[in-house]
Amino acid sequence: MEPGFIARQLIKRALTEDIGREDVTTSAIVCENEIGCARAVAKSPLVVAGLFIFEEVFLCLDPAMKTTRYVAEGKQVQPGDILLTLKGNLRSILTAERVALNFLQRLCGIATLTRAYVDAVAGTEAKILDTRKTTPGLRSLEKYAVTAGGGCNHRFGLADGVLIKDNHIWAAGSIAAAVKRARSHAHHLLKIQVEVKNMAELAEALAAGADVIMLDNMNLCQIKEAVAIVAGRVPLEASGNVTLANVREIAATRVNFISVGALTHSAPAADISLLLGATERG
Amino acid sequence: MEPGFIARQLIKRALTEDIGREDVTTSAIVCENEIGCARAVAKSPLVVAGLFIFEEVFLCLDPAMKTTRYVAEGKQVQPGDILLTLKGNLRSILTAERVALNFLQRLCGIATLTRAYVDAVAGTEAKILDTRKTTPGLRSLEKYAVTAGGGCNHRFGLADGVLIKDNHIWAAGSIAAAVKRARSHAHHLLKIQVEVKNMAELAEALAAGADVIMLDNMNLCQIKEAVAIVAGRVPLEASGNVTLANVREIAATRVNFISVGALTHSAPAADISLLLGATERG
Amino acid sequence: MEPGFIARQLIKRALTEDIGREDVTTSAIVCENEIGCARAVAKSPLVVAGLFIFEEVFLCLDPAMKTTRYVAEGKQVQPGDILLTLKGNLRSILTAERVALNFLQRLCGIATLTRAYVDAVAGTEAKILDTRKTTPGLRSLEKYAVTAGGGCNHRFGLADGVLIKDNHIWAAGSIAAAVKRARSHAHHLLKIQVEVKNMAELAEALAAGADVIMLDNMNLCQIKEAVAIVAGRVPLEASGNVTLANVREIAATRVNFISVGALTHSAPAADISLLLGATERG
Amino acid sequence: MEPGFIARQLIKRALTEDIGREDVTTSAIVCENEIGCARAVAKSPLVVAGLFIFEEVFLCLDPAMKTTRYVAEGKQVQPGDILLTLKGNLRSILTAERVALNFLQRLCGIATLTRAYVDAVAGTEAKILDTRKTTPGLRSLEKYAVTAGGGCNHRFGLADGVLIKDNHIWAAGSIAAAVKRARSHAHHLLKIQVEVKNMAELAEALAAGADVIMLDNMNLCQIKEAVAIVAGRVPLEASGNVTLANVREIAATRVNFISVGALTHSAPAADISLLLGATERG
Amino acid sequence: MEPGFIARQLIKRALTEDIGREDVTTSAIVCENEIGCARAVAKSPLVVAGLFIFEEVFLCLDPAMKTTRYVAEGKQVQPGDILLTLKGNLRSILTAERVALNFLQRLCGIATLTRAYVDAVAGTEAKILDTRKTTPGLRSLEKYAVTAGGGCNHRFGLADGVLIKDNHIWAAGSIAAAVKRARSHAHHLLKIQVEVKNMAELAEALAAGADVIMLDNMNLCQIKEAVAIVAGRVPLEASGNVTLANVREIAATRVNFISVGALTHSAPAADISLLLGATERG
Amino acid sequence: MEPGFIARQLIKRALTEDIGREDVTTSAIVCENEIGCARAVAKSPLVVAGLFIFEEVFLCLDPAMKTTRYVAEGKQVQPGDILLTLKGNLRSILTAERVALNFLQRLCGIATLTRAYVDAVAGTEAKILDTRKTTPGLRSLEKYAVTAGGGCNHRFGLADGVLIKDNHIWAAGSIAAAVKRARSHAHHLLKIQVEVKNMAELAEALAAGADVIMLDNMNLCQIKEAVAIVAGRVPLEASGNVTLANVREIAATRVNFISVGALTHSAPAADISLLLGATERG
Repeated sequence: MEPGFIARQLIKRALTEDIGREDVTTSAIVCENEIGCARAVAKSPLVVAGLFIFEEVFLCLDPAMKTTRYVAEGKQVQPGDILLTLKGNLRSILTAERVALNFLQRLCGIATLTRAYVDAVAGTEAKILDTRKTTPGLRSLEKYAVTAGGGCNHRFGLADGVLIKDNHIWAAGSIAAAVKRARSHAHHLLKIQVEVKNMAELAEALAAGADVIMLDNMNLCQIKEAVAIVAGRVPLEASGNVTLANVREIAATRVNFISVGALTHSAPAADISLLLGATERG
Repeated sequence: MEPGFIARQLIKRALTEDIGREDVTTSAIVCENEIGCARAVAKSPLVVAGLFIFEEVFLCLDPAMKTTRYVAEGKQVQPGDILLTLKGNLRSILTAERVALNFLQRLCGIATLTRAYVDAVAGTEAKILDTRKTTPGLRSLEKYAVTAGGGCNHRFGLADGVLIKDNHIWAAGSIAAAVKRARSHAHHLLKIQVEVKNMAELAEALAAGADVIMLDNMNLCQIKEAVAIVAGRVPLEASGNVTLANVREIAATRVNFISVGALTHSAPAADISLLLGATERG
Repeated sequence: MEPGFIARQLIKRALTEDIGREDVTTSAIVCENEIGCARAVAKSPLVVAGLFIFEEVFLCLDPAMKTTRYVAEGKQVQPGDILLTLKGNLRSILTAERVALNFLQRLCGIATLTRAYVDAVAGTEAKILDTRKTTPGLRSLEKYAVTAGGGCNHRFGLADGVLIKDNHIWAAGSIAAAVKRARSHAHHLLKIQVEVKNMAELAEALAAGADVIMLDNMNLCQIKEAVAIVAGRVPLEASGNVTLANVREIAATRVNFISVGALTHSAPAADISLLLGATERG
Repeated sequence: MEPGFIARQLIKRALTEDIGREDVTTSAIVCENEIGCARAVAKSPLVVAGLFIFEEVFLCLDPAMKTTRYVAEGKQVQPGDILLTLKGNLRSILTAERVALNFLQRLCGIATLTRAYVDAVAGTEAKILDTRKTTPGLRSLEKYAVTAGGGCNHRFGLADGVLIKDNHIWAAGSIAAAVKRARSHAHHLLKIQVEVKNMAELAEALAAGADVIMLDNMNLCQIKEAVAIVAGRVPLEASGNVTLANVREIAATRVNFISVGALTHSAPAADISLLLGATERG
Repeated sequence: MEPGFIARQLIKRALTEDIGREDVTTSAIVCENEIGCARAVAKSPLVVAGLFIFEEVFLCLDPAMKTTRYVAEGKQVQPGDILLTLKGNLRSILTAERVALNFLQRLCGIATLTRAYVDAVAGTEAKILDTRKTTPGLRSLEKYAVTAGGGCNHRFGLADGVLIKDNHIWAAGSIAAAVKRARSHAHHLLKIQVEVKNMAELAEALAAGADVIMLDNMNLCQIKEAVAIVAGRVPLEASGNVTLANVREIAATRVNFISVGALTHSAPAADISLLLGATERG
Repeated sequence: MEPGFIARQLIKRALTEDIGREDVTTSAIVCENEIGCARAVAKSPLVVAGLFIFEEVFLCLDPAMKTTRYVAEGKQVQPGDILLTLKGNLRSILTAERVALNFLQRLCGIATLTRAYVDAVAGTEAKILDTRKTTPGLRSLEKYAVTAGGGCNHRFGLADGVLIKDNHIWAAGSIAAAVKRARSHAHHLLKIQVEVKNMAELAEALAAGADVIMLDNMNLCQIKEAVAIVAGRVPLEASGNVTLANVREIAATRVNFISVGALTHSAPAADISLLLGATERG
């Protein structure tokens, strides 16, 4: 994860977006110095991710807020389980609630979906990867949530990995030319991955010296054929049309990585509520 | 929508997040001044929302990029339909592609889901509303996408509407006290909405002079009873546990508004690709 | 008020504006770790507003600064009265002095002028409102100062209230058309206010279903006639050419609100000094 | 003045403050691409200052806005005089109107009050100076408005001039010590000004080698005496309790500068309206 | 390079730093709309880098400035050679001059020093690399200047390459443990480089599967021995105590990379002047 | 120095530049809550400057970091001397190390070079001045380092001093015209310095009433002649072609100031290491 001061900027922008000038309801109704307690409770089965951001949202409004975590990041919880309790300025609790939940529900949603994919391939060697199909502005948090769910991260962005796609190959004229240009331009700690659509391109990529190869939108038969051809010389990543229904079969082909855009672009929010009032342990 | 310079800041942050120092792949492979064409094509049925943001992402990298829209915002399109074509610096097209699609796929996803809810209540008086359960930092765009899908916006944030929830009532001691405090604090152009859980609270809210009442997590019978009790004196909003399966029944009770958090927090991304190469019309 | 972190940004910008690279005088003359005391003293009768900002300015330069308030916000004080004492790094006191006073004198000036208007209508039902004629960048603080002086806030900005002015009516073609469009566009927690110039427009606005009506630049006779016509059906706001000399007469017409731009655009600064040296109580 | 990109940031913050998410009234009522004309008209006698900022506000919302100035900065105009005309996107005109006027009315107000002081001392050698008692965030604009009104600027902030005040003298132990420290710390292009309260301090300041001396809150007799003592050896600035009523008498003492905090902290806003519709020349 | 809008922010900060409120000299002396010409001329032999930044500085103050480049990036020029000519607002030329030169002289200085190292190893296979020892805030520009001088870039920052240094090894307990942890944490497109101090560590790093090995502060004998041991299995980087005097000998050992911190942390500024007045070709 | 919150922004930008998303090496290898100790040690003789910035970099990542200074700013130290020790989160130490050293090595480098110049003129009256030839974004720190090395600062930027250069004279037509315009435009606490190239210009500048005169690129004979002509009437600054070899001769001419651009634009970085592990005193 990035340094805390970067996340705090993101949180402040989110609070500013929601609060604007003032939470008119809370300012009107709740006394300025009243203290309150609250607990975040799971309303559906979910994998926990992002409690530190959830806490930080409240701390931005009340630096004296006390928070107690009841579960660790990456844990599976059941409906009714308490995730975290808060004690502090009641106005701050009510005003920050929605933003804090918006972060937490999204991150838990991603972790929960990731866990489902990871569980589906359990026992195989395949690793579940995320993609760059993340929410603008939230990539770092969302990629963190993927790891909390047991997945692995692909490159973070365009600067920390070379991934030669069909459009690049088209522009370069050939896979060989593209790989050669990338090799001479990128620094020596970056590997070069090439996306291929068929066995001909696979052969070209191997010949060109690709460090990693992505099998783009191939069906199961093609993936099996590719695995056989490559025979372990370079790692293989399957990508495209991956679902919970077919991910285990894909993993069984012995590809090394399976990337799933849906982890971040289509994970439904986890259901979590913030309830006022003290708990036994809080 | 907010002024364009605010959206541009959001886009620049998203581009910075993805590009970091440099798109090492594209810089290596594509010549600096090469010109290219591309078209955004729907891969699934979807409702269009956010083409202006999609365009703006490319314009941030190449201010001379030419864009041509093929469909209007809010239109339903089918797989294979072209949404928009681009002509400009090829490096810029490749480097901006992912960020531009990340915005567009999310916004179209929201518009598409919203349209499904709106269609489901067609013929009734009920309006489909969004909530504040939006992605941190993207609220303005996401609420726009809801309108592109035919939905209506609830308040934008905590400053432009009074919504007294259970926690506020608990803090104030009673609905009457909460409404009174809100009335004296909020400015005279804001209405006061009260969330109620049962018929007793509904009666209290009516007596307290609420301008609008939200029926929170009520079942169909309760909603019907509430509609009968209120008898048109104030608008009613049904909220909680709304699904595509039950929304029409809820609308049939003659509530005025039905709010659906899933519109923004759980809409799957629409499937859209950017394809290089000229089109006939582009 | 908005969250504290927003006000702190404003203060930091103001300090940066004044200090630039360095307070060359203080750096040269005062030792780096010297401790000093100071007291803010009223030099003219004034209503207190903004001590929290005043404190925060000093805290930005010396987070260990101790501050003690001697009066509450909204109180009337007399020349010689101490408002607040400081104890902390002497360089920070001297360097922050002017910015802190610039904020405080402006806010107390606004509160003081507001109090004069509020006192002038004492015993009537009329509420004194501010406008959007505020200093760019300081609206939130200035609107707070109005409340400290006993006034009420109008909408904060263009997003949290619909106010249809002559130019909008001109653009829409008629009051009826303008109100109809606003009703269908604005969310359901916003009321619709219409500005009218004469009795014909007043009748139109009533017929169009305006929630609130502003009487723009009407003289006393007109206001009386309007109050009679409306007969309590909707709240009325008198606006334009309001002075301390005529505000009581206007209030006597039984309009509900009287808005006064001068509260924020023309309030003279209150006279306040910062004196070094310890006080008896400090 | 500072570079234009700094002023544009200030304007964008002001527009964001006022617009928030959206001008709900204008968005509802005015068509997106409608073109309109408007003219800024003086409603009271005033000195013009800040038309470039006024224009820039509209340009921020509509970069294609056409603006035509009818008067030059620093000119005196009469009620009814047109200052500037606009032609461009009608929504942008209506949405930007208040912010643009808030800037312009404040700056013209300052220029108008400054001109009154400058006229009052016409024929003497005295120059009217501003102070650092400016609106937080607007110093650069406000100091510009002073020059548009014919006044001169004092130092901009704490970094571009040494001004030793009573608190600095108290901290240093003596005027001599303070001046000596300042001389050795400040760079060689800064002069050293000392504030004095009486003839004893004046003598000390002269002996210490002050480059400029400020006579703080002295009455007319004292100022005359000080002028006589100094006899032209260093420039003198009178400060404190200066009003339009006494400024000419002060100037007649032959002090070189008279500084007036009220120019920026208490100038009433000038009265200016924006009227829709074309003009003959526009 | 990063997108242009990021560089522009850097330039605006630099201009703000230098100009503050105003270039008082130029504002006083040069007429507002005067047009001028100028040429940037080398005063010493240098390698050109950064003309695009130089141009952009002037464009920030005068968007209509015309610039004409006389040499390409990466070219060696001699004293008296013209690098670039300008034509535009004379005030803008004078006010931007110092900031523009501060950027250009630093970047040309880096490119010039880099070229000296690159020339020194001409004919060998060794590539000259930069390090992370760059000026805070200018890394992207400085690394660009290294490439303009013919050098290659090492990783940009801590996120786009794994480099296990002595402190990491100490924390992990062994090279093997450190490599293993890095392999499981970093994404699959990053290679793992290990820094070693002697032959024992070199053997460990090889055994642990390091992708690249850095020979830290080894003398020529040690480097030769290391090259012999590794025998081409992984690329080797020599680092530490590299000077223009010994770089050729180091290259002759057949290490693959030689990294030189001095390229960015100690390159003297190139000598370049901006001369007013038209040129024959300008 | 400017307020601490400004330096913190600079540090955060530098950390963000280096860390990006994450220090992948350290995150992989070092446990999240491990505590470590480190000491900054001089590797070459140097003058200390900037320990407060060095500390602040670590505090940005770990606000609980304990730092202990072993030497005062401005002190000369020898290879092996400890400058400062750290105790705190080990990850934070490793991640912040490079940025902290990049700041410190540059500032110590500047202070060290400045001290060499100051020592070279010891016993004369001449003061060593810096220039505006500083690193974009770091001027305030670099000018501080000059003072730590015993030098004096010239004006900070274009706003806090008038310096009329050849280009300004060319634009104004004559030195007399330029001085006159500057005198009437600049505020009364700024002195006016004129740059002259020969004795004719020197005479003009004296006649025009320049407060300070800069002798630009004059040789020793010319400087001597200028000193004789001026005879102490105004301070003189020698500028251009100053080296450690000739600075004492220049000082011997009795010029008041000698400005040296190389202090900031070409000072080599000081050699400093951060070593992990506890010290005896730490």
